[in-house]
Amino acid sequence: MSSFGQVFRVTTYGESHCKSVGCIVDGVPPNMSLTEEDIQPQLTRRRPGQSKLTTPRDEKDRVEIQSGTENGKTLGTPIGMIVRNEDQRPKDYKETDIYPRPSHADYTYLQKYGIKASSGGGRSSARETIGRVAAGAVAEKFLKQLNNVEIVAFVSAVGDVSINRNPTNPEFQNLLQTITRETVDANQPMRCPVESVRDQMAEIVTNFKHKQDSIGGVVTCVIRNCPIGLGEPAFDKLEALLAHAMLSIPATKGFEIGSGFEGTRIPGSQHNDPFYVEDGRFKTRTNNSGGIQGGISNGENIYFSVAFKPPATISQEQQTASYEGVDGVLAAKGRHDPNVTPRAVPIVEAMAALVLADAVLIQKSREFALSVVS
Amino acid sequence: MSSFGQVFRVTTYGESHCKSVGCIVDGVPPNMSLTEEDIQPQLTRRRPGQSKLTTPRDEKDRVEIQSGTENGKTLGTPIGMIVRNEDQRPKDYKETDIYPRPSHADYTYLQKYGIKASSGGGRSSARETIGRVAAGAVAEKFLKQLNNVEIVAFVSAVGDVSINRNPTNPEFQNLLQTITRETVDANQPMRCPVESVRDQMAEIVTNFKHKQDSIGGVVTCVIRNCPIGLGEPAFDKLEALLAHAMLSIPATKGFEIGSGFEGTRIPGSQHNDPFYVEDGRFKTRTNNSGGIQGGISNGENIYFSVAFKPPATISQEQQTASYEGVDGVLAAKGRHDPNVTPRAVPIVEAMAALVLADAVLIQKSREFALSVVS
Amino acid sequence: MSSFGQVFRVTTYGESHCKSVGCIVDGVPPNMSLTEEDIQPQLTRRRPGQSKLTTPRDEKDRVEIQSGTENGKTLGTPIGMIVRNEDQRPKDYKETDIYPRPSHADYTYLQKYGIKASSGGGRSSARETIGRVAAGAVAEKFLKQLNNVEIVAFVSAVGDVSINRNPTNPEFQNLLQTITRETVDANQPMRCPVESVRDQMAEIVTNFKHKQDSIGGVVTCVIRNCPIGLGEPAFDKLEALLAHAMLSIPATKGFEIGSGFEGTRIPGSQHNDPFYVEDGRFKTRTNNSGGIQGGISNGENIYFSVAFKPPATISQEQQTASYEGVDGVLAAKGRHDPNVTPRAVPIVEAMAALVLADAVLIQKSREFALSVVS
Amino acid sequence: MSSFGQVFRVTTYGESHCKSVGCIVDGVPPNMSLTEEDIQPQLTRRRPGQSKLTTPRDEKDRVEIQSGTENGKTLGTPIGMIVRNEDQRPKDYKETDIYPRPSHADYTYLQKYGIKASSGGGRSSARETIGRVAAGAVAEKFLKQLNNVEIVAFVSAVGDVSINRNPTNPEFQNLLQTITRETVDANQPMRCPVESVRDQMAEIVTNFKHKQDSIGGVVTCVIRNCPIGLGEPAFDKLEALLAHAMLSIPATKGFEIGSGFEGTRIPGSQHNDPFYVEDGRFKTRTNNSGGIQGGISNGENIYFSVAFKPPATISQEQQTASYEGVDGVLAAKGRHDPNVTPRAVPIVEAMAALVLADAVLIQKSREFALSVVS
Repeated sequence: MSSFGQVFRVTTYGESHCKSVGCIVDGVPPNMSLTEEDIQPQLTRRRPGQSKLTTPRDEKDRVEIQSGTENGKTLGTPIGMIVRNEDQRPKDYKETDIYPRPSHADYTYLQKYGIKASSGGGRSSARETIGRVAAGAVAEKFLKQLNNVEIVAFVSAVGDVSINRNPTNPEFQNLLQTITRETVDANQPMRCPVESVRDQMAEIVTNFKHKQDSIGGVVTCVIRNCPIGLGEPAFDKLEALLAHAMLSIPATKGFEIGSGFEGTRIPGSQHNDPFYVEDGRFKTRTNNSGGIQGGISNGENIYFSVAFKPPATISQEQQTASYEGVDGVLAAKGRHDPNVTPRAVPIVEAMAALVLADAVLIQKSREFALSVVS
Repeated sequence: MSSFGQVFRVTTYGESHCKSVGCIVDGVPPNMSLTEEDIQPQLTRRRPGQSKLTTPRDEKDRVEIQSGTENGKTLGTPIGMIVRNEDQRPKDYKETDIYPRPSHADYTYLQKYGIKASSGGGRSSARETIGRVAAGAVAEKFLKQLNNVEIVAFVSAVGDVSINRNPTNPEFQNLLQTITRETVDANQPMRCPVESVRDQMAEIVTNFKHKQDSIGGVVTCVIRNCPIGLGEPAFDKLEALLAHAMLSIPATKGFEIGSGFEGTRIPGSQHNDPFYVEDGRFKTRTNNSGGIQGGISNGENIYFSVAFKPPATISQEQQTASYEGVDGVLAAKGRHDPNVTPRAVPIVEAMAALVLADAVLIQKSREFALSVVS
Repeated sequence: MSSFGQVFRVTTYGESHCKSVGCIVDGVPPNMSLTEEDIQPQLTRRRPGQSKLTTPRDEKDRVEIQSGTENGKTLGTPIGMIVRNEDQRPKDYKETDIYPRPSHADYTYLQKYGIKASSGGGRSSARETIGRVAAGAVAEKFLKQLNNVEIVAFVSAVGDVSINRNPTNPEFQNLLQTITRETVDANQPMRCPVESVRDQMAEIVTNFKHKQDSIGGVVTCVIRNCPIGLGEPAFDKLEALLAHAMLSIPATKGFEIGSGFEGTRIPGSQHNDPFYVEDGRFKTRTNNSGGIQGGISNGENIYFSVAFKPPATISQEQQTASYEGVDGVLAAKGRHDPNVTPRAVPIVEAMAALVLADAVLIQKSREFALSVVS
Repeated sequence: MSSFGQVFRVTTYGESHCKSVGCIVDGVPPNMSLTEEDIQPQLTRRRPGQSKLTTPRDEKDRVEIQSGTENGKTLGTPIGMIVRNEDQRPKDYKETDIYPRPSHADYTYLQKYGIKASSGGGRSSARETIGRVAAGAVAEKFLKQLNNVEIVAFVSAVGDVSINRNPTNPEFQNLLQTITRETVDANQPMRCPVESVRDQMAEIVTNFKHKQDSIGGVVTCVIRNCPIGLGEPAFDKLEALLAHAMLSIPATKGFEIGSGFEGTRIPGSQHNDPFYVEDGRFKTRTNNSGGIQGGISNGENIYFSVAFKPPATISQEQQTASYEGVDGVLAAKGRHDPNVTPRAVPIVEAMAALVLADAVLIQKSREFALSVVS
């Protein structure tokens, strides 16, 4: 469905060729300063056309708050937000009228809904993520004031080039501790803050662009200053909510938290994060857990990675079948993103913020209840 | 929370040292044959003590249906199920009364709930999964009758030993196409059906057991004959629901669908799954998508892998801090699973079945609505 | 929260003095004809200023579909709809800046949210219902095609004047069987189709208007051709969902289904609705049940009544306390509805439609499941 | 479905002729004292066979906590509770095997689920309410500690005999202010605390029993010391949640809050509840609102009434149709409750407690969020 969250909840609408896309954010704390200025930056970071490596369409993506604020303060009522689709003409998608794009959503949408939108895959459009990013910016504003929560995502791999994400690598843990959005954005166009690999990444993407091909990558995200106690066993463990959130982003194929798949190869005696106490607070000497134990945040950095497949829409010819079931060759005209990871960065951050804001509100009600009965 | 699913929904209860564990399954189709015989086999597969590689505690785990059936048929009302905890005495957990186990849930549960259960991590106990497995067996029964849906999980990696899970490896795709639960169980104790690696896996686990250490692994699962059209964009994409389900299983650290993290390294021109038509049905020549495109099942095999970390409870000494914040050495007495993957197999299958049963019911209501208005 | 429904779900936003009000309707059947023309009529019926008995503010309330349709057909994706607030200037509410209006939401909103919107009661504004009515019109379109479901509400009481709603009154049952929206609207301004009382009602309202006072009333609603089997025991009985929906409408104080409160006085031997079979279908000779038995629709007319209190905002002087806690006299300037029941008619219909559309989709998934296993 | 609530949530299972009935209560505050002693009293009050006016079957209804507590304290994990069905033999329901009972759920259950349970109406059995009452007792324990919240229900009408429930009647308001459960139970068998009517009520019920007939009644409930700010506009107004909860109780036909249907006849100038300030707190001089304004609790007494129809199962002969569609005469053997209102008292209290506990937790998270950003 188009809603996410229980107490802090976003509902989104919109696809490529309609009047606007947007969202309703319910459960936003009242009396919080909030204007379009708080939301636009992440939408702008999400926007295509930011560098020559991404698609050149220039979407303006200006957010307009419709409701829920007055005099720059939230009222506690739902925040309605819209972003107009500048060009609502169905695009010139001749070939894709004939062929369902391989590995795109064209075929499954038609099967599921029995109707073919002019844009093919309906809400699988990247524009669907605008509402998420707008809502995420609202969540982040709250989290910042809550505990100075910091959420920073960056590109950690493109094709075969990757930073060393081994959880036992001190440089990686140091990067997680220090990385900021400013640093990430200073490393355009790839938003990879590690100098030694970022230029290789850009080169790879350029090559795939020239070949009219595409390539995937990995976005890694760290959450610092997360309150202790978030996450609801059994089914709504914090990592399960994050996995749900991340795999709901278009083009994702995988998620790992903390040590992730690499962690399956580390003996328990090394993988376990020993406790120590500093300034009266329990900390762990290592952080293979990724800040979550038993589904509940433990106060350490939460970090996770998300795999993005190569974009399905490519300009080079592909042998496939038409909607009518006839074999043929599809070459998708137009310019297409050869790699989505840099644009995915603010989307990953937004979804993480939405998970946390909801988890915080639920946990705070528990803490209140505990204080009543103890 | 302790509920999962919208229309086909399970709610579970129970931890280690209480009278029973169990679940309520709501939304089960009426008039379906169902007795304990349908449910017990998967519970038995989940049970510890099945081989010398797993923990020797002998839990009987007999399921008792409380409600929702009569004369061996479901009534459409909720199925209540309980499994008694044979031994309710709080275990002799002396050391763990003093030390929160590193990377276990002891510390976070105490922080979240402000109370320490005698078993430490409360519902993070493996016994919490009994309700899931019981409910999953009910879901499976329905899916079998629906479309002969087959869900088979197996161990694909332990420590450094792994089968070749590259999506472009034809042997792997062939394994996914042919593997059965019978074959999986014939490959005890590791439930890895690939002869060349299964014995190495067993050897690894034996070694870790001798070292009083533990090691992780990967469980891979395939779903065959899944109906087309399941999954709800935007937030409830089928892979997002599966990721949520899998990361809610204790000790999981990662999830990947189809090509997964490996897929980030494959060019789009190869990663895209071209369509062809056979017997009037659209199929794809490759299946890097893992049976889901745009969040919606496309009728191909759905396959995914889940990373399990090394079990946190080990008998060897660990330097850590006590609940009182004093540095010290914890050696968890008793016998502990050095590796959980073989027992995780039916749990992964159960959670997959629960996701599918719910998604089927929701999609079928859509198909009905479509038929009304078209 | 601002969402209603499980599978067919509306989420609304907006209050009095913001840019727009609107909603997102999720779960709308795909491939259904839908344009603004389908939605506007009910919004126009809800609009104030339709007669001299209601408030003279002229709100245009034109709905604009933002997403989810193409070429006049639904896509299966969420329908975003907005209705602009023509005049966004905070109204000249001088006195109500000083005094919380007695029995209005001004005080409780301030207590709940800790912030006072310029309009006082935030979302308790009647404009909040616009999104409901728009969404209800979409639901109705589906229900019409489903089974020619007819939902007709009308004013059955104003102050002391009431039609005879006794369930055993054959004229009342006949009215329920035959009433149409056209007839209702032909009986302006009160939307009461019973000639003998409608003029008295209008007179009462005129009198209260002249006295700068207000008066309540009852809206009765009938649903004809409702499919059998809707409603989910135990907690989501169809009448429970209807009660929830109706009591969520501003200014409501009561709900009764079928015989309602009167039914508590009828002996069981008369109250029970005996079965008979006609044309192979089970029918009941009486309908004290109101079309629902055991929480499940039985195919007879569903009918219920909703009590609306007198509007809280009146122009005559009221002794009360200011926000600062000082006793004083409030006289709310401006013109106010002396009675809301005629405008409530389409809102009641909308909420009924939303309940049914969701219940139909859930039940149809059950029927499908039943067909699979039987 | 079988779940109720968002953050404090109960899920129930069980019907007449199964092994046990019970529930899972999720979201219970941790570290709260809780044993069977806290729960049994309300179950015992719900139990049939308490007086000669109710059904003589003696059900023991002993609750057994399965999980979620240790050493008499809650753990924060779900509370599983079961109550065994003493006699699981399908009852001797010969006639009702042939005839669907008029106005009972037999027919609609069969239509909805396509299968006929031996008990006829499946979960429409009164035993389904046991899980609610057990869960409500847990909620009450929390509410008591929260703010000394008091919830007291009583029988206010049976057939034509009623206490004067007019909201402007000072004796009625005084009753609401002072009534206790002890007083209610001292007025057996009818649980009506007003001396002048209670004996008439008992006489009516006795008469209907002798006539093998049944009669309905009204249960009124007051909630004192409810915290301010509960209820979530727009769809989850506190009165909407209460209405949902009450209309989900078997045999209910109506709900009214505060002035209710009577309030439609009171001019706004009298109906409005003027504010005054006492001890620094806003109070209202009258309470026609019933403690809720704009969907949000205002700190005054919340009171509401629930209409219960005459029980459908009666022993006297009824002309009706058999399952096979043949006209005939049904006389339901056995002894049946001629009136359910005294037994409904603890069920109404339980549902009210469940609504409040959930609303408190949600609101407390909002208040926390407000404190963060203000």
